Amino acid sequence: MDPKAPEAGAADAGPSKSALKKAEAKAKKEALKAQRAAERAATQVAAIQLDDPSKDFYGRVTPTSPAAFSPDAREAHLRDLGAEHEGKSVIIRGWLQNSRIQSAKMAFIELREEGNWAVQGVVLASAPDAPEGTHPVSRPMVKYIGSTNAESFVAVEAVVKKPYEPVKSCRVADWELHLTRFFLVAPAPAMLGLTMAAANRAVTNFSDEEVKPAAEGEEAAKPAEAAAESGPAPAASMLTHLDNIAMHKRAPVQQAIADIRMEAKHLFRSYLRERGFKEFEPPCLIGASSEGGANVFRLPYFNQEAFLAQSPQFYKQFEIAGGRKRVFSIGPVFRAENSNTPRHMTEFTGLDLEMEIKEDYTEVRDMLEGVLLHMFRSLQENCKEEIALVRSVYPSEDILLPEPGKEVRLTFAEGQKLLREEGPEEFRNVSDDEDMSTPQEKALGALVRKKFNTDFYVLDKFPETARPFYAKLDPLHEPKEGGAKLCLAYDFCLRGQEILSVRPLPPFRYKFETNQLILESYQGGQRINDPDELEERIRAKGIDPKSPGICDYVDVFRQVGVPPHGGGGIGLDRVVAWLLALPSVHLASYYPRTPKRLLP
Amino acid sequence: MDPKAPEAGAADAGPSKSALKKAEAKAKKEALKAQRAAERAATQVAAIQLDDPSKDFYGRVTPTSPAAFSPDAREAHLRDLGAEHEGKSVIIRGWLQNSRIQSAKMAFIELREEGNWAVQGVVLASAPDAPEGTHPVSRPMVKYIGSTNAESFVAVEAVVKKPYEPVKSCRVADWELHLTRFFLVAPAPAMLGLTMAAANRAVTNFSDEEVKPAAEGEEAAKPAEAAAESGPAPAASMLTHLDNIAMHKRAPVQQAIADIRMEAKHLFRSYLRERGFKEFEPPCLIGASSEGGANVFRLPYFNQEAFLAQSPQFYKQFEIAGGRKRVFSIGPVFRAENSNTPRHMTEFTGLDLEMEIKEDYTEVRDMLEGVLLHMFRSLQENCKEEIALVRSVYPSEDILLPEPGKEVRLTFAEGQKLLREEGPEEFRNVSDDEDMSTPQEKALGALVRKKFNTDFYVLDKFPETARPFYAKLDPLHEPKEGGAKLCLAYDFCLRGQEILSVRPLPPFRYKFETNQLILESYQGGQRINDPDELEERIRAKGIDPKSPGICDYVDVFRQVGVPPHGGGGIGLDRVVAWLLALPSVHLASYYPRTPKRLLP
Repeated sequence: MDPKAPEAGAADAGPSKSALKKAEAKAKKEALKAQRAAERAATQVAAIQLDDPSKDFYGRVTPTSPAAFSPDAREAHLRDLGAEHEGKSVIIRGWLQNSRIQSAKMAFIELREEGNWAVQGVVLASAPDAPEGTHPVSRPMVKYIGSTNAESFVAVEAVVKKPYEPVKSCRVADWELHLTRFFLVAPAPAMLGLTMAAANRAVTNFSDEEVKPAAEGEEAAKPAEAAAESGPAPAASMLTHLDNIAMHKRAPVQQAIADIRMEAKHLFRSYLRERGFKEFEPPCLIGASSEGGANVFRLPYFNQEAFLAQSPQFYKQFEIAGGRKRVFSIGPVFRAENSNTPRHMTEFTGLDLEMEIKEDYTEVRDMLEGVLLHMFRSLQENCKEEIALVRSVYPSEDILLPEPGKEVRLTFAEGQKLLREEGPEEFRNVSDDEDMSTPQEKALGALVRKKFNTDFYVLDKFPETARPFYAKLDPLHEPKEGGAKLCLAYDFCLRGQEILSVRPLPPFRYKFETNQLILESYQGGQRINDPDELEERIRAKGIDPKSPGICDYVDVFRQVGVPPHGGGGIGLDRVVAWLLALPSVHLASYYPRTPKRLLP
Repeated sequence: MDPKAPEAGAADAGPSKSALKKAEAKAKKEALKAQRAAERAATQVAAIQLDDPSKDFYGRVTPTSPAAFSPDAREAHLRDLGAEHEGKSVIIRGWLQNSRIQSAKMAFIELREEGNWAVQGVVLASAPDAPEGTHPVSRPMVKYIGSTNAESFVAVEAVVKKPYEPVKSCRVADWELHLTRFFLVAPAPAMLGLTMAAANRAVTNFSDEEVKPAAEGEEAAKPAEAAAESGPAPAASMLTHLDNIAMHKRAPVQQAIADIRMEAKHLFRSYLRERGFKEFEPPCLIGASSEGGANVFRLPYFNQEAFLAQSPQFYKQFEIAGGRKRVFSIGPVFRAENSNTPRHMTEFTGLDLEMEIKEDYTEVRDMLEGVLLHMFRSLQENCKEEIALVRSVYPSEDILLPEPGKEVRLTFAEGQKLLREEGPEEFRNVSDDEDMSTPQEKALGALVRKKFNTDFYVLDKFPETARPFYAKLDPLHEPKEGGAKLCLAYDFCLRGQEILSVRPLPPFRYKFETNQLILESYQGGQRINDPDELEERIRAKGIDPKSPGICDYVDVFRQVGVPPHGGGGIGLDRVVAWLLALPSVHLASYYPRTPKRLLP
């Protein structure tokens, strides 16, 4: 039996433990080799000779020797390089992605400016018989450029020329920089903790424990296109990425995710502003754990105890009580849940809205549906490049969205009916009064996709057992003998399936699956605005309306007349992870906080 | 001696303790009276008689009896009321600001929709001989409308007419609503904890202790214009405002402050986005208290300890290390400072930016100056109405800003020279090596205002003793024997004076005075991007570079080459308080957090 066979098999399903170890050892060896080479080179180029004719055109930038460019050179950006630059001298500041000595007379570099905007640079030593007065490039200068450490920050001057053939390895394929000056502004170490090639590959695993094989369903994605040229670099774990935060963030895939995230935030905000919503800022520090005590962070606060907000729910409602007709907030929320999975974080960004209801709770439903669809549609349109870049590392497909005017809204009962009538055998007898099980929701998602050609739909009017105390009951619904009352509340379901579980307080839902069908819910509904009704519901849920936090909440509705209102909320991290079908919500976050990780 | 004389004297300087107590007693008595009257009225109008010809046109909205409007009535907003509405039926939902029975046949109301957009409504009982088929208004309906509790939420239908003369008490002075339908959507209690008239007056004091006379320099401002008509309502303390959060927030002055705050945030964001800055989100939960241990909140975090971020400083720099050339963040920061003053909060919103420096640290200085001036100029332009409204309660004057191109930038040494040469006698010998004292700064502010006609200027190149370890020293500056080195760092000074005190870590400064000259600083500067230089400075500041948080910070600069960069930060609460010269920063916050107050 071939001893390599089991490993090969394992590689198909995801790297095995031994493969990971081997890759790590290989990476270390390579890095060590690189370090030695660089150290050697550094010694050689450390001192620029006084008789070097190019001595003013390269070297380390210092206060006494700053970068000095020709008077006719103009600052340019890689994103904008075009025919108007041909033959001209440009100044570009960026990160040295690669450097390579071709010969004593020639060296190549790759210079990156932002995201994956990189260009090839070349430097040629001047011929010994170069006419007097021309800009000389000495051999030591060529050597210096070719042996500068990757991921150093440099400022170069170069003439823009057309390459012999398009440079496939760089996004700026049609132009090449012929370097005439090269200044090292901030050197990188010879050995990087994480190379760019590795940083731009799919993260192998999201465990907070050191070296552990990837769990099933969390396979490493295919090697990134970008890494293809220099051979597939070994991919790294999330821990390695976070330990090398600068390189993690320099990877074009992470910059693209960050750009998409900010665009999502921007779209949420601008859609609501245009519709008369006012932004407000709920506090993070709160005096009472109003939303269930188990998952809340507590801290000593002078002579009392403070809590970190789990959602802005109560504060959104205070704004409505305070005479705002429509409000939204974007800010951090916290959950002290000891769940060490790629689906959980302890701090994330909430997107929340709340609005006056004029006549009917569907006004809120349609607003939430509208803003979500706007975000998904616009992201797929505005962020095409970024999404394509992410998909080159984490493959996924576009979400199927409903045509405008053809949004799919099923009541909970209609959903159950569909399951009974057209779903799998085991769901022939599902009840309208009980919350759906996960298999039911998956089956319903598949049915909706087949029937209506959409991954996005609304499930409306949930039984009250599945909702928090502030959810308004449907006043027009008469439950059957022993049946559950219905709430004016709904979930938004994406990517086929939705998981509805009864959780202490679910304006943000956590269920999130890592296979290619990512699940998440966006809950919303009408809230109770009558204090007596609210107190009755609080008691019915087994909560003491006089308990801290709760009593202050109810009290606001007694202080003044509060109009009918409703709203909903969603995690921004999840919107991004949904859209891109990322294997972990940690990738969508700037600095993911997990129960074991608070650094960097 | 007239026993009233001392009180009258005290009233000029601010209400005395006894005056406050009297006012409170008076308010309670009035409220009790109002409550009784309302209870009486409520009993009278509780049941709408079946033979009431208007019975379908007024009353409480319930699931079985929702608001029902005429088919030809159209929704309108007070802000838009105009000639095109004259004689037409409109539907308006809003807060009943006032109701008053004039006679058995006539009642008046004031209806408020948002901010101070209110309109007068009138209802007249139909003549007994009104022709059959016309819309009847019964006397019970008039009584119901005239005795509905203030701050109830109502939905009305009315014909828009020109009043006999402009209605001075309402912002919509040129139109009047002739009510035909009146539905009570959410009733307020008969007795409000804080009336609108009181809520819209200047807060009397900001102490966290119960009933305490206002401290010197924190006098209650003059009664608001808005309160003038119904007689000056007794003003209330911040504690009463916060205990009645809905009424606090309904006050037009608070809504105007909130609108200005959001516009400030929007201006900061849009200015930077236009200049290529990328927004990012720093974490609130951090693993090490990197910025001085004394004022940091600590909390148990699973098996370790977490801290709440005091500023996004390190994370802004991580973004630059991570390949972003320009970043900004807007989010909460926390200070565990046990200071119970109108100038302190434990949670506030930071506006922060960080950017690559191409050639010189002045690039950052000019960007910070640019965004701040843009914010102040645009706020004074875009928020004229809101600022005027705030000033009707908290009087202040426009900030004197420099003409574009005439920004005033003094080096610290030039400031001291100015003081020596043109300042008061006692500053004849001030030194360039020592930080300025408060009186020095005040004197300098006055000199600058006189000399350059601006309240806003930059003080540049501070001695290193006044700056944190990450501030870059001026490499071109050679200190005199025994003299201090200079930093490439600056403060922005507003409203004449600036206070520069050495504080543990000052990207956000706290000094803030409550007299009409409000003081605050906006600090910024170039950071050290070389790890060796950074470690040296950390040691020079007496900090162990291997301590938690610090070592992780330095490490990032060792991992990769990080370009030169700089930035600055400011509290959003302070921008708003500055601009409006508010007596307390608490008024600029949505839910001020103080050492004694976490509710609501």
